[in-house]
Amino acid sequence: MLALYHFGPVANSLTPLLCLFEKGLDFDDRFLNARLWAHHTPEFLEINPQGMVPVLVHESRAVTESTVINEYLEDVFQQVPLRPADPYERAQMRIWTKWVDEYFCWCVSTIGWHRVIGPMARALNDAEFEEKVKRIPVPEQQVKWRTARAGFPQDVLDEEFRKVRVSVARLEETLSKQDYLVDGEFTLADICNFAIAVSFERGGYEDIVNETATPGLLAWMRRIHERPACVRMFAETRAAMEAQGRQDPALAAR
Amino acid sequence: MLALYHFGPVANSLTPLLCLFEKGLDFDDRFLNARLWAHHTPEFLEINPQGMVPVLVHESRAVTESTVINEYLEDVFQQVPLRPADPYERAQMRIWTKWVDEYFCWCVSTIGWHRVIGPMARALNDAEFEEKVKRIPVPEQQVKWRTARAGFPQDVLDEEFRKVRVSVARLEETLSKQDYLVDGEFTLADICNFAIAVSFERGGYEDIVNETATPGLLAWMRRIHERPACVRMFAETRAAMEAQGRQDPALAAR
Repeated sequence: MLALYHFGPVANSLTPLLCLFEKGLDFDDRFLNARLWAHHTPEFLEINPQGMVPVLVHESRAVTESTVINEYLEDVFQQVPLRPADPYERAQMRIWTKWVDEYFCWCVSTIGWHRVIGPMARALNDAEFEEKVKRIPVPEQQVKWRTARAGFPQDVLDEEFRKVRVSVARLEETLSKQDYLVDGEFTLADICNFAIAVSFERGGYEDIVNETATPGLLAWMRRIHERPACVRMFAETRAAMEAQGRQDPALAAR
Repeated sequence: MLALYHFGPVANSLTPLLCLFEKGLDFDDRFLNARLWAHHTPEFLEINPQGMVPVLVHESRAVTESTVINEYLEDVFQQVPLRPADPYERAQMRIWTKWVDEYFCWCVSTIGWHRVIGPMARALNDAEFEEKVKRIPVPEQQVKWRTARAGFPQDVLDEEFRKVRVSVARLEETLSKQDYLVDGEFTLADICNFAIAVSFERGGYEDIVNETATPGLLAWMRRIHERPACVRMFAETRAAMEAQGRQDPALAAR
């Protein structure tokens, strides 16, 4: 049995979701609502003591970290390979996935936290906020919540936007020349970069990502959106999220 | 033909060195002297435009990033496998290698820069320093050189030492129970953690790493030091470094 705990089709949760759909694997969809802090409940902390998604459960064993999960899915399920067969190309794929984990995901993440988590945290009163924060197992995450609530300093945001521009330029350089990131074939490198790049579609990056400056990047995003597995992923995970929303009294009341 | 550009048996350079020796692979040892800024020469920038080591060259193609290099060596050379055969254990190995790249290596690195690079940078006059720095291709590295020269602020060093303590506690928790990090067998997880942990042997960490607080970690380090491949690695790379030192007039003059 295969199950995935996730926050829906965005950021690090999208990474294993799209891999599962591309490989045509059936899995139990365990959407967790971040707004309800579902990832810090005692039940979920038993599955991942760090209180973080995504988590893949396979044969009663939990695998964490989106990049590691996708390599695991490749190691276990041979159908529809998403790693290049050639070891050199596979190394290029891993340089991209490592770069997303260490650079690209962080700058986009901080801006997302500033825009989404900040207002969410400020909507709580001090006592409610402290009650939530003390249940976060990772100290760095506690600091990030506090900073988001207080508001990230402008120099931090400026530096993160600089890194977004560096990241977008790096992607555009390759994607202006080829359909996919590694040797023109769709791989885990495209999946993890797409997972972060979908944040650009939510707005606020129009001066960095647009048809004039980044035609290659935008064409690549449309190309991935049109893949049947990607169409199914968005449709089915959103349906599952909405179904859960209707059943959940806290969400139904909103 | 296999060649490795490296700074000698420490930190990220040790990671592919030990892998090559464990697998018994012959390779051309291309030691670069960091004190002579050999990694920022036009010749080396042609091999790696980022001006960073280690770099593996195999069949005229360059592979960068120590973790990626070791996965590449595993993909290409099947002898003496250093990844667990079981996909779940292999995932646990990758969680360790990823954690070294994203957490453990950075805190130890900052302290190393503070102790080694800081004095090295301050030994240059302003003009010499600016001349060196402008040849560094990665902007974040330029910033790090400037900060090291000025001296890292105490609150940054305190935070890095906190992370070293977290890292050491995490290693000790596992190594107090088993000989190696993943299921008791020697893997790439041990190699990349050992590569960082050897810095503890240079001193300055006695209050964190010692026989009372971390007997498991120290026993694991001795266990790796006693492996025949590790003994050969230190002996042969140091001999190659010394041979180069004798030939190099700048080093011979010191």
